[in-house]
Amino acid sequence: MSKPTNIGLSPGSLVYVGRNIEADETQIRIIKYNEQLYETQVLEKCDMQQLPTPTPGFVTWIDVDGIHDQQTIETVGQRYQIHSLALEDIMNTKQDAKLEFYDNQLFVVFKMFHLKKGQKVTLDTEHIALILGENYVVSFQEQRKIDIFTPIFERIEASVGKTRKNKADYLLFALMDLVVDNYMAIAEQIEEKLELLEGDILRNNHHDPITELYELKRELTQIRKHLWPLRDVLGRLSRDESNLIEASTRPYFRDVLDHIVQLTEGIVSSRELLTSLVDIHYSLISNRMNSVMKTLTIYSAIFMPLTFVVGIYGMNFDNMPELHNANGYYYIWGVMIALSIGLLIYFRKRGWL
Amino acid sequence: MSKPTNIGLSPGSLVYVGRNIEADETQIRIIKYNEQLYETQVLEKCDMQQLPTPTPGFVTWIDVDGIHDQQTIETVGQRYQIHSLALEDIMNTKQDAKLEFYDNQLFVVFKMFHLKKGQKVTLDTEHIALILGENYVVSFQEQRKIDIFTPIFERIEASVGKTRKNKADYLLFALMDLVVDNYMAIAEQIEEKLELLEGDILRNNHHDPITELYELKRELTQIRKHLWPLRDVLGRLSRDESNLIEASTRPYFRDVLDHIVQLTEGIVSSRELLTSLVDIHYSLISNRMNSVMKTLTIYSAIFMPLTFVVGIYGMNFDNMPELHNANGYYYIWGVMIALSIGLLIYFRKRGWL
Amino acid sequence: MSKPTNIGLSPGSLVYVGRNIEADETQIRIIKYNEQLYETQVLEKCDMQQLPTPTPGFVTWIDVDGIHDQQTIETVGQRYQIHSLALEDIMNTKQDAKLEFYDNQLFVVFKMFHLKKGQKVTLDTEHIALILGENYVVSFQEQRKIDIFTPIFERIEASVGKTRKNKADYLLFALMDLVVDNYMAIAEQIEEKLELLEGDILRNNHHDPITELYELKRELTQIRKHLWPLRDVLGRLSRDESNLIEASTRPYFRDVLDHIVQLTEGIVSSRELLTSLVDIHYSLISNRMNSVMKTLTIYSAIFMPLTFVVGIYGMNFDNMPELHNANGYYYIWGVMIALSIGLLIYFRKRGWL
Amino acid sequence: MSKPTNIGLSPGSLVYVGRNIEADETQIRIIKYNEQLYETQVLEKCDMQQLPTPTPGFVTWIDVDGIHDQQTIETVGQRYQIHSLALEDIMNTKQDAKLEFYDNQLFVVFKMFHLKKGQKVTLDTEHIALILGENYVVSFQEQRKIDIFTPIFERIEASVGKTRKNKADYLLFALMDLVVDNYMAIAEQIEEKLELLEGDILRNNHHDPITELYELKRELTQIRKHLWPLRDVLGRLSRDESNLIEASTRPYFRDVLDHIVQLTEGIVSSRELLTSLVDIHYSLISNRMNSVMKTLTIYSAIFMPLTFVVGIYGMNFDNMPELHNANGYYYIWGVMIALSIGLLIYFRKRGWL
Amino acid sequence: MSKPTNIGLSPGSLVYVGRNIEADETQIRIIKYNEQLYETQVLEKCDMQQLPTPTPGFVTWIDVDGIHDQQTIETVGQRYQIHSLALEDIMNTKQDAKLEFYDNQLFVVFKMFHLKKGQKVTLDTEHIALILGENYVVSFQEQRKIDIFTPIFERIEASVGKTRKNKADYLLFALMDLVVDNYMAIAEQIEEKLELLEGDILRNNHHDPITELYELKRELTQIRKHLWPLRDVLGRLSRDESNLIEASTRPYFRDVLDHIVQLTEGIVSSRELLTSLVDIHYSLISNRMNSVMKTLTIYSAIFMPLTFVVGIYGMNFDNMPELHNANGYYYIWGVMIALSIGLLIYFRKRGWL
Repeated sequence: MSKPTNIGLSPGSLVYVGRNIEADETQIRIIKYNEQLYETQVLEKCDMQQLPTPTPGFVTWIDVDGIHDQQTIETVGQRYQIHSLALEDIMNTKQDAKLEFYDNQLFVVFKMFHLKKGQKVTLDTEHIALILGENYVVSFQEQRKIDIFTPIFERIEASVGKTRKNKADYLLFALMDLVVDNYMAIAEQIEEKLELLEGDILRNNHHDPITELYELKRELTQIRKHLWPLRDVLGRLSRDESNLIEASTRPYFRDVLDHIVQLTEGIVSSRELLTSLVDIHYSLISNRMNSVMKTLTIYSAIFMPLTFVVGIYGMNFDNMPELHNANGYYYIWGVMIALSIGLLIYFRKRGWL
Repeated sequence: MSKPTNIGLSPGSLVYVGRNIEADETQIRIIKYNEQLYETQVLEKCDMQQLPTPTPGFVTWIDVDGIHDQQTIETVGQRYQIHSLALEDIMNTKQDAKLEFYDNQLFVVFKMFHLKKGQKVTLDTEHIALILGENYVVSFQEQRKIDIFTPIFERIEASVGKTRKNKADYLLFALMDLVVDNYMAIAEQIEEKLELLEGDILRNNHHDPITELYELKRELTQIRKHLWPLRDVLGRLSRDESNLIEASTRPYFRDVLDHIVQLTEGIVSSRELLTSLVDIHYSLISNRMNSVMKTLTIYSAIFMPLTFVVGIYGMNFDNMPELHNANGYYYIWGVMIALSIGLLIYFRKRGWL
Repeated sequence: MSKPTNIGLSPGSLVYVGRNIEADETQIRIIKYNEQLYETQVLEKCDMQQLPTPTPGFVTWIDVDGIHDQQTIETVGQRYQIHSLALEDIMNTKQDAKLEFYDNQLFVVFKMFHLKKGQKVTLDTEHIALILGENYVVSFQEQRKIDIFTPIFERIEASVGKTRKNKADYLLFALMDLVVDNYMAIAEQIEEKLELLEGDILRNNHHDPITELYELKRELTQIRKHLWPLRDVLGRLSRDESNLIEASTRPYFRDVLDHIVQLTEGIVSSRELLTSLVDIHYSLISNRMNSVMKTLTIYSAIFMPLTFVVGIYGMNFDNMPELHNANGYYYIWGVMIALSIGLLIYFRKRGWL
Repeated sequence: MSKPTNIGLSPGSLVYVGRNIEADETQIRIIKYNEQLYETQVLEKCDMQQLPTPTPGFVTWIDVDGIHDQQTIETVGQRYQIHSLALEDIMNTKQDAKLEFYDNQLFVVFKMFHLKKGQKVTLDTEHIALILGENYVVSFQEQRKIDIFTPIFERIEASVGKTRKNKADYLLFALMDLVVDNYMAIAEQIEEKLELLEGDILRNNHHDPITELYELKRELTQIRKHLWPLRDVLGRLSRDESNLIEASTRPYFRDVLDHIVQLTEGIVSSRELLTSLVDIHYSLISNRMNSVMKTLTIYSAIFMPLTFVVGIYGMNFDNMPELHNANGYYYIWGVMIALSIGLLIYFRKRGWL
Repeated sequence: MSKPTNIGLSPGSLVYVGRNIEADETQIRIIKYNEQLYETQVLEKCDMQQLPTPTPGFVTWIDVDGIHDQQTIETVGQRYQIHSLALEDIMNTKQDAKLEFYDNQLFVVFKMFHLKKGQKVTLDTEHIALILGENYVVSFQEQRKIDIFTPIFERIEASVGKTRKNKADYLLFALMDLVVDNYMAIAEQIEEKLELLEGDILRNNHHDPITELYELKRELTQIRKHLWPLRDVLGRLSRDESNLIEASTRPYFRDVLDHIVQLTEGIVSSRELLTSLVDIHYSLISNRMNSVMKTLTIYSAIFMPLTFVVGIYGMNFDNMPELHNANGYYYIWGVMIALSIGLLIYFRKRGWL
């Protein structure tokens, strides 16, 4: 959420803000394609000479996998004249979704979600930055075991779909579409968990669902927090703010925006149901409490008078005529049984039994 | 809510996303009419040759019943030059209400509601897509036992109402109006259920209304979720965004929009009452708990002292003068009766009886 | 809220939707006036010949009392060229407040409130529709015992106020102002009920205020539901959307709008206080419960040890020295009294007494 | 909130709506000043001849103290050509803050707050109306013991501050600024009360804070209700809607607007804290209840088994070997003490002690 | 929140409103720099002669540390022709964030946060005002032990970063960026406290977290209250409202705005989680209460019947055959043990054990 390590630093200073990366190498993959041709290259070390110049008629895609190395980011930044504020945002993994237009570049930064399966499933966010220039896209992603853009590499390689037939702006769309599809898949998983929990709560066979409901709410809150700025980003991309995006590509961005809007609606609905489930849970607790109290009260109401009655005839007064009646003991049993039955009838009438 | 089966696929890929359809055939009905003429035709198999070319002076309506067959959708798409994103949305039953303008076509997709009567009544959504071009409408609906557009077919056939006298944009309106009327009918049924439940809760003769209230809230949430984007769609249709819709037809779309706005207001009100009913229910639970506790307390308060008193005279001390008084037993009864009456008077004064 | 009886009907079909009207006649009153002249006429039967043509220099007001008779509405509609959608809305009592501009007519429909005094006071809504054309106003109202426009008739007749000096747009204003004044009077009555209830709750002499609070909330919800669209209607009337309303009349509509805005604010405030009152009520219930529980606990805490003590000396062991002490009985009374006093002091210290 | 006494009256009718004023006289004070000159005059009776004509080069301020006398308001209205709707609003103390531009006049109406110190401190609202014309301001205030504009009179008289150097629009600003400063002072007092109450609740030494919290909420609700329309009024004054206000005076109005915005934020924050305090209070009640229940349960759990044990040896069976053991009585005491200690240890382990 | 000490004063009067400052001196630091040159000077006393005139080609920064001395503020105000309303806002520490454009100056006022470490950590706000003119910035800060702008002084001195290469508008940005970075650091600290508390609550090892949750909410409310107007200020700075800010500096302000938006989102999320944690806490209290009640009920349900049974055989009837049975005592033990076991089984089945 903030930049704790760079307060007081000059704005635009390049400092990696994020989790610790131990000795991971940054890898750069370069793809150059048009409808006919396709060539790819992987750089293990970043070298300014090897970074290609975008050529008209081709789409050049530079994919930087790993953003913790200041040297690499700076080199790529110089090579493609990326604004210093953009470079700062690329390396700051706490930066949320954002769109900025610089002279002849469009800069987008946002988050990818992964479900990290440790002791319990938690959301892991990956920082992604994209730069769209004329005929090229530069993408940056945090180092992870899985390269999230692989499906698109493969589609371009296999010349499946429309990416090969389109320009760099379509590639930008394809990359963002992938991320939003991923959001939807995760939202769907959360929704399924919610439905399971709902069933458990309604059938009343979950002892303490509050903590789980809280976890779900936390995840939805986290997604929504990243979704709002992303929605704003796509809203602006699908309107006519930059001439880097052609009119024919806009419907595609509108489509992604549409998915985000739908996703937001879904999250709003999920959160509401979640709140209602908390209510139901409280209602069930209250009902259970009521039932406990009723049991206690019925027991007390029946046995207190009976204990009093047997207490009376336990007294040691010299003169207690009932004690000397031959059937006194049986009469008193009769009285006690009648009393108990009467009380049971009374409680049944009040609806407590 | 999402497209789980097509992550990583190229955007615009045609994949049916929805419930399983077993071997249902897709059926295409074609109607061509103007004020004087009317002809209809049903295609069991989709054949591009048989799909008619729209003719000026006529309205051509192609109604595709069944959207799970990729072949059919593709053929119809090619025949009428439908944008690939639109085709994707037609087959994706998770797509929410949406309006898009393509070159010379207007594309709307939204949801129809059915009350599915199984073990309990639940909402079933049907995916509907409409395309308005010059002089033609192409409609797509999920395969269901009931063809929802039947009333309009019949009205056109019988030349009742204004549809025959108007152009294709009026047909689009007629189809959407039908769906919104259906929404209102369903909202009304939910409202009736809410009123019944309200009566039950206020008269306090419903044991556990929380679950039912939750079901109602769920349904209202579901409707509202689909209603918001639909409201947006109709807002744009009733403003002047496309010249496919003539000025004289706009008031009709405004009328539908108006119904949706009214429906939204109604849902907001229903949800509020629902929340208040949950409050009332809790208040009743609390009152019942209070009443249970009071009963317990009054019993305890009366019988604990009495049991103590009879306990005293059950003690075996050698020297207890009261025990040897001839009327001691009667005196102690007097004391206990006086005590009980005193406590009853006290509790009545505190308002517990 | 919806049109259950006309699903599948052609839009614009004239069907009365509302409560049953048994054999009530529709009455039409015609008033023609300018500053100098004034004539009035009552038609028991609707006859197209008798419906007057608006004349420049005069304001013609046709007031139709009763909207359930399709024949009458159709005749009036034809005579004054009213749009078929407007006619449908006139007869549909479920239609909420709405403003529509047709060629040379302005159409407003909204609700009037009556307090219906049956077993308990409930809100009764009356459907009102007004059409403003050049030099004429056509008004429609549901048949009721009281003609709500009577004060305006009388003012015109007596030539009091400015209505006679102004044009048809001022008449429209006067009619709407009357309705909004009525809203305010009803809101004020609800506010008074709320204040009474507030006093009762704060002084804690209302046994079960939740149901009454719910009724008030219900009424406020109902008013607010009708108020929002009406606010929109007046907002548009007070801006410059139609030339049927002259610039000099606009401040009057702004004044009405202002009253509605103020009313809305008032309702928002009332609803908030209402919610707070529910909180207070719960707090009082909790306090009462606490007080009940404390009583129970104090009783138990005092009598349980005492009963235990007397139980001890009720045991029949052969060897219990205390029993044979001559003053044992008095000693044990001393112990028990000391114990009780000690416990009372303890509870007073904890603040439970 | 409404005009109960004038339903059915012609709009614009002059009727005083407010509290009863017994025989208070209306007083009119006239001030005429520019940077050099200053003259003042007090009229006990309103006489049209004595009401001055505004002169260029001077600011004329007519301050009417008392708005219940229809005759006076009408006379002043005629003299300065005030619109009839404005006159109605001047006399209607239920009218909320409002800004209206009439031909060459600007009309503002709003509320002043006073803290009325009766049995408990309550908010008292005073109705204020201001009219700004070229070179003059007419102000109307409800009759009160204190004339709220006195500080401004005195500043003008003493030629302190900038009022004397500026035009009539600056006087309007000065009057409104005074009122808003007063709002802030009252909000600050409420905030202080809230802080005191907060301390009490957090230190748990307030028996029943709910009623006081409710009173504070009520006051904040009342202020906020009047603040929203006033914010709107100042928003419009600080934008460029009228040429009666010069560009150089706009920053002053923006400054007042700014104070209102800040005030609104403060009220929002106060209300939130208030809601949280209600939560804390409930939490404390629940904790106290828990503590009461625990006490009861521990008493019961210890004395019930003990009472049972002594009950056993109070039985009169012929054959009960323990009774005849010489140390039976002492053994049983041992058992009971061990049992009590065991239970105390158990409850301490569960954290109930 | 308000200006209690200056009600009735002429607007624009210079009065310090804030905490008491005892005998602190106001210090003025002057820096003049461009890319090549740099000179600095500290004035212990404010003297108009020594205040430098801004020169083109240089950035002049006048930093006033201490705002309680009216004389100093007035002198600086006169020297740089600062608007009287701005001067009033500089000295009024209750003034919230605000942006105003005066003739050729841009005036910003806002709050800095410090974590004040006393008995418990609380937020301390420092009042900051900045004025941007052509080639100069005047900054005002409340007297504190730490001069918050020190990092920027040092960067300018060391010629690190871009400040030296840019104009006065960039200096304004650098100063505001520093403050917003500080906000983020504080928000992060609060978030960490929230996470700790969350862990405690979920693991149920915090006795009374409500008060701490309340403290956190209070702090978030306080930050948010200052953040909203600051967001507005930066929104306006990053749009094109003034020509004092060059186009190339705007992206920097947009970057700050972006951080604030992100911060706001974070605070909204934190507050939501906070509310959910209150819910969880209540749920845990309820569960604990339930557990207490169950214990009580089980004790009562088992010992009440047993006590009753032993009471029966404590009665002194002459004729009670069981008493004389040789094994009666053992039989009755059997009955009691069976009863207890039966009840335990019953409660286990109901899930209470």
